[in-house]
Order: sequence, then C-alpha cells, then structure tokens
Amino acid sequence: MKIAVFGLGSMGYGMAQSLLRAGHTVHGFDVVPQQVERFRDDGGAGGELADIAVSLDAVVVVVLNAGQTKDVLFGDNGVVPRLKDGAVIMSCATVPPEFAMDAEARCAAASIHYLDAPISGGSVKAAEGRLSVMAAGRPEAFAAARPVLDATAETVFDMGDHAGPGSVMKSVNQLLAGVHIATMAEALTFGMQQGLAPDRFLEVISKCAGTSWMLENRAPHI
Amino acid sequence: MKIAVFGLGSMGYGMAQSLLRAGHTVHGFDVVPQQVERFRDDGGAGGELADIAVSLDAVVVVVLNAGQTKDVLFGDNGVVPRLKDGAVIMSCATVPPEFAMDAEARCAAASIHYLDAPISGGSVKAAEGRLSVMAAGRPEAFAAARPVLDATAETVFDMGDHAGPGSVMKSVNQLLAGVHIATMAEALTFGMQQGLAPDRFLEVISKCAGTSWMLENRAPHI
Repeated sequence: MKIAVFGLGSMGYGMAQSLLRAGHTVHGFDVVPQQVERFRDDGGAGGELADIAVSLDAVVVVVLNAGQTKDVLFGDNGVVPRLKDGAVIMSCATVPPEFAMDAEARCAAASIHYLDAPISGGSVKAAEGRLSVMAAGRPEAFAAARPVLDATAETVFDMGDHAGPGSVMKSVNQLLAGVHIATMAEALTFGMQQGLAPDRFLEVISKCAGTSWMLENRAPHI
Repeated sequence: MKIAVFGLGSMGYGMAQSLLRAGHTVHGFDVVPQQVERFRDDGGAGGELADIAVSLDAVVVVVLNAGQTKDVLFGDNGVVPRLKDGAVIMSCATVPPEFAMDAEARCAAASIHYLDAPISGGSVKAAEGRLSVMAAGRPEAFAAARPVLDATAETVFDMGDHAGPGSVMKSVNQLLAGVHIATMAEALTFGMQQGLAPDRFLEVISKCAGTSWMLENRAPHI
C-alpha cells in the first residue's frame, strides 16, 4: 500500500518505520524538516504532498491534538480533498469524541473512510509495531485500514462501528495515566524526603499494591 | 515456634493459617470471638493470653492502625510486659514511622525485639503465605522473626537496621494505592457516562498505559 504518515515524533516515527518494515511505500511528513530527511534516509518515499496525495491508500495522522489533526485533514493544504475515493484516514492523536464524529462525517462526504484510532503503548512499542489501538469506525474503515493496523498494532480493540468511542476510551486512559504519573512523582518525592532511596522505592513499590504502568515505566527516568 | 497472632481479619487470618501450615503452634486473638473460635477449629491453639504469653517466641500484630497496635503491645492487658526476654514483635499494621521507632525503643527496654513489618499483597496472598513485607529492624529482630517471615512472605524487603523505614515505605505505597483506587473508580464512572461498557473499560485499560495494580485487582469487584 501507499501510505502517508503525518507526524514523525516519538510515536509516529516508530509507526512509519513499522509500516516500512511491512513492505509498504511510506511518505513521512512533519513540521520539522530534519525528521522528514531522517525518515527518507531510513527508506521513506519522497515527493510533494500535492503530487502524491491522489495515489495514497491510507493516511496515518499521529500529531499532537485535535487542532493539528484538523489542519492536516481539512486545513488550507489539507489532505482529505486531494485523496482518491475509498482512501482511509487513521486518526491517532488524542482528540475529543465529538471531533472524531465530526471528522468521520466530513470524510464520508468526500468518499473517504475515517478510523477513530487513538494509540497507547509508548515509543518503544511504536517502533516495534506492537501498539494498542482503540479503534472505532465503520466496517469499511476498519477493512481499509487493516494493513496499517496489522503493521503497527499488537492489539486492536474494536470499540464500535462509528467514530467516537475510540476517543472516549483514550480520554479515560489518559485521565488515569496522567493521575498515575503525577501521583508517582509526588510519592517518590515524599518517600525521598523521609529517607527512602529512589531505587529502593521503585524496587519495592513495583512489587506492591501501589504500582502502576506509569510508575514502572516512567519512574526509572526520573 | 510458639506464636500469637493478634487480629484475625482478612490479612491476619491468612497469616495465621500460613503459620499453622508451616508447623508452628499458633494462638489467635481477635476482638470478634467468632473469629477466634473459627481459628481454633482450623487448628489454632487455645489458652488465655495471661497463661501463654511467657512461653511465646513471636507475636504478630495485624490490627488496623497504630492505636490498636499500641493497645495490644502496651495497653492495660498489653502483651509486651508478659513476654520472655528475646521474644519478637512483628508489627504489620500501617503506622506512622515515629510510632514504629518509639515502639522499638519501648520493646528494647523490656528486652523484646521489634520488627517494623508492614505488609502488602491482599487477602489471597496472605492466605497463601506469599505477602510482600517491608521490614525494618535490628539484625536480632530480623533473626528472631525469620521463621514467621519464611511462613508468611514471598518477598521480604530489608528496609534497614532500625524501625521506621518499613512504615515510611508502606505509607508511600498506601498513598499510591489510595489515589489509584479512587482514580480508577472516577475513570470507570466517566467512561460509563460516555457509553463505555465496564467490562470493555477493564479489558482495554488493563492493556494500556492507564493501568495500575489497584485497577486490575479491584475494578472487577465494582
């Protein structure tokens, strides 16, 4: 398949690499030119968006938020109006469920499939093609995005047959992850103030009821 | 060894059973007479505290808090003044570190060893003898309590050579566990309000970055 990945950050770069590994033709786009060059050195395809858009089968959007996703899809140089009928948008940023539902409707009006597909797993799993994807969309959108899901995800949770629930699930996940990472930092500080060595903190808590994915994954970086 | 367990609740009962299984003579005490009777039916030893205290090698205190621990150790019918020299107190309730340090000093004055030994793992691991123990105390206290630790714990974290750090570690763990369980309940409610089925919530989140021990262990009960 011919695929464009918008957003070559820690998650998008890994996903783009996984798509290359799976044998797809992958065009990478990013606001940072060095990231685009680096990806071309890794085997990414070249070309200007205006020239290649009409030949794309899938567009993976791995930017920061709804605003950036909207720009990529429907902005002044937005990709949706340039795509051929039946191409699929896989939207991976964390966005409000209402945004996902609206984007699905706008894509449908342009004969484009839209998959509400937030991701979880961190940059290591992204690079390994082993993400968790909370996907929601019409069956045709799932079918069109299947090769992309196969190359990038270890687990695809089918959250329903229309856009929205994927983003709901992701929001809940982020709420939990955010509270956990803040709590972990507070607890580590509290323990250190009372004389606990940080390594000891991590060793003990990770074996006790106070542990979380965020604690085990992020505390070692602190 | 001859051991008394004070507090036959969900954690203490399991620890007392694990001690029986290891071949020790175990006396169980609780404010609920039915729990004491039930433990005797399970193989616990009988007798009044006043008669047996002097022959005890170890006392395991698995009550709710510092106030109850203080009553058991130093109250009107407290056990510490009745014990023989060299017996060991293993104090498992979550207590302030200052309490643990003070109790160690008072025990030392009575020639009794004191192990600051909060526990983690839940009632199932308690019954299986597979708890995590955050233990701090003098080397003699560790040595005297070793048979009790061997029978009840899968992991013993040696937190230091004086009482206090075990309780610090446990406080930090409880802070995390408390925040996690509250956050999990809020996130589950938030997701349900937006149409996520609770089973689906648990299935997805437990595979994503928002997971925690508390979520995986407690959400199924909600």
